[in-house]
Amino acid sequence: MNVAAASEPDPKPADLRRSTPARAPFACLRAARRVRITPRYGEGAVEVEVRYLWTGAPGAPTVIVQGGISADRDACSSTEHAAPGWWESQIGAGRAIDLDDVRVLAIDWLDADDLHAPSVSSEDQADALAALLDALGIARVEAFVGASYGAMVGLAFAARHGERLGKLVALAGAHRPHPFATAQRAVQRGIVRLGLENRCVDDALSLARQLALTTYRSGEEIGRRFAGGAEYRDGRFRLPVEGWLEHHGKRFVGRFDARRYLALSESIDLHDVDPKAVRVPATLIGFASDRLVPLADLCALQQRLGAPATLEVIETPYGHDGFLKEHERLAPLLREALRDCGA
Amino acid sequence: MNVAAASEPDPKPADLRRSTPARAPFACLRAARRVRITPRYGEGAVEVEVRYLWTGAPGAPTVIVQGGISADRDACSSTEHAAPGWWESQIGAGRAIDLDDVRVLAIDWLDADDLHAPSVSSEDQADALAALLDALGIARVEAFVGASYGAMVGLAFAARHGERLGKLVALAGAHRPHPFATAQRAVQRGIVRLGLENRCVDDALSLARQLALTTYRSGEEIGRRFAGGAEYRDGRFRLPVEGWLEHHGKRFVGRFDARRYLALSESIDLHDVDPKAVRVPATLIGFASDRLVPLADLCALQQRLGAPATLEVIETPYGHDGFLKEHERLAPLLREALRDCGA
Repeated sequence: MNVAAASEPDPKPADLRRSTPARAPFACLRAARRVRITPRYGEGAVEVEVRYLWTGAPGAPTVIVQGGISADRDACSSTEHAAPGWWESQIGAGRAIDLDDVRVLAIDWLDADDLHAPSVSSEDQADALAALLDALGIARVEAFVGASYGAMVGLAFAARHGERLGKLVALAGAHRPHPFATAQRAVQRGIVRLGLENRCVDDALSLARQLALTTYRSGEEIGRRFAGGAEYRDGRFRLPVEGWLEHHGKRFVGRFDARRYLALSESIDLHDVDPKAVRVPATLIGFASDRLVPLADLCALQQRLGAPATLEVIETPYGHDGFLKEHERLAPLLREALRDCGA
Repeated sequence: MNVAAASEPDPKPADLRRSTPARAPFACLRAARRVRITPRYGEGAVEVEVRYLWTGAPGAPTVIVQGGISADRDACSSTEHAAPGWWESQIGAGRAIDLDDVRVLAIDWLDADDLHAPSVSSEDQADALAALLDALGIARVEAFVGASYGAMVGLAFAARHGERLGKLVALAGAHRPHPFATAQRAVQRGIVRLGLENRCVDDALSLARQLALTTYRSGEEIGRRFAGGAEYRDGRFRLPVEGWLEHHGKRFVGRFDARRYLALSESIDLHDVDPKAVRVPATLIGFASDRLVPLADLCALQQRLGAPATLEVIETPYGHDGFLKEHERLAPLLREALRDCGA
């Protein structure tokens, strides 16, 4: 298909020609489209703006890539947005998701406010992606690579729009949340609501993020990094791990909105896809020390999927964050999963 | 020793005579003594009131029993306080800690305000217990049975007052906190401070307790109990696990004080005892699914203690709460550990 044509009325894409021995810039669209979907918890169809990135070899097949609730469409750097993306290690020319062979399509998650609905579902995100494919004139995607919440949305997409999907690659995500993870997220949302109700939302959002952070890593990794005693400072004792938590909490407040956090965190806990409805070949990738998505849940998912699925397990101290940390062990698994995709 | 004499000026104890074939009431003192200790983080010696329970067979040797930070001196019911204690299953006539053979001594934890100090240490609690022994005329205790924070204080007591201790029995507690557990508690304290600063302390304390609760159990146990989907109620979706968390959060607010919670939670994270300083025989009891006190830390403790120690491991889905839940598997281990104690 012709990217330039599909991009109308988007901004003019970067140079699309592969005309010289030197690598031409990838075709890149970083824009927004209005699409129409019917949210699961809403009151009928709504029109919603979907912000997306579509980048890679001109004319190459498309692979959808989606990350966790705090990830955005900038999965990789692009001519339109030079900063490294959240999965820069895996996406690029010559990398596991090879932009010489495929084009990556990624969106910013919708939240409940976008939908004028009380909540947003993983199905809503999947439907928005499908509607965006229509808008961009993409009949079929070779693969959906989703990690964490992205894996949940990938499952919803495969269940609802399987006829336009070649392969599902789901990392650290299952057909339903685990109740322990739900419990920790319920407290995170309780903290944020407390902050909204008592005008201390920044501090509350920081604490919620700090709590989330403790669940993204294994105890082993946290234990190794933050051994050592307390230090008295600013009127109270501080433990080594607190500095790390507070730094990341503060940084998150600078880039994330509390209501959006509530909606996307809840969306994880409302997620519920029937594995039998997924009739697309799948590769599941789990992380042995992931305390949010236990391997037992991935085994159950694998057994119940409606099409053949491979389950790959990475031993890592990084827990749920393994998909962001285990670059070298992940890359060959992604390459293998995407072997038949590409130009 | 003579309990009645030692109790002056405490309230008159219950009938001390074992005169009839029918079991006489246990000797029971439930009172308070003022003792003098020098807090680790304070500015010199302070006088502090220690509330205690001392109950069991008249004249029998004494065993100290201490639980987690939210436990109190009422480890078992007594003639002075009829409600079941927090360890009623293990303490009583004919039970593992047999009140026909020993007397149990337990105190309400001191907090930082009691000490007029910024923080309270596990050593302070140990010193208060030692001072209470002096006040009650108890030269030596046969055993210190401590669980969770109580195990930490038991280690501190064994290190500082080992000459008056026969045996240490430490359940679900080690020589230092694990940084992952510290991270989760640091967030709990952050929530409570947020509540104190923004006049929403009850809701904050409830959330902190809810978070603590998620760490007391294993993911397996929570997963088994709270599977199932969300229900829309009172303007938002509720997950099954939320009802359990909120119930316990609310109940905790009704019985606990926020500043006391801050002090005792922090005391766990400041705890640091050199195992080599413990030269008393010990039995360590760990729970395989305990996410706060990993078995690896108990193994390290066992190897480094300054006297022979046994490590017993209970396989349980109850995690850290195993010491409150695994009545039947725990009782024989306690009996064995206390075999040579008693009248």
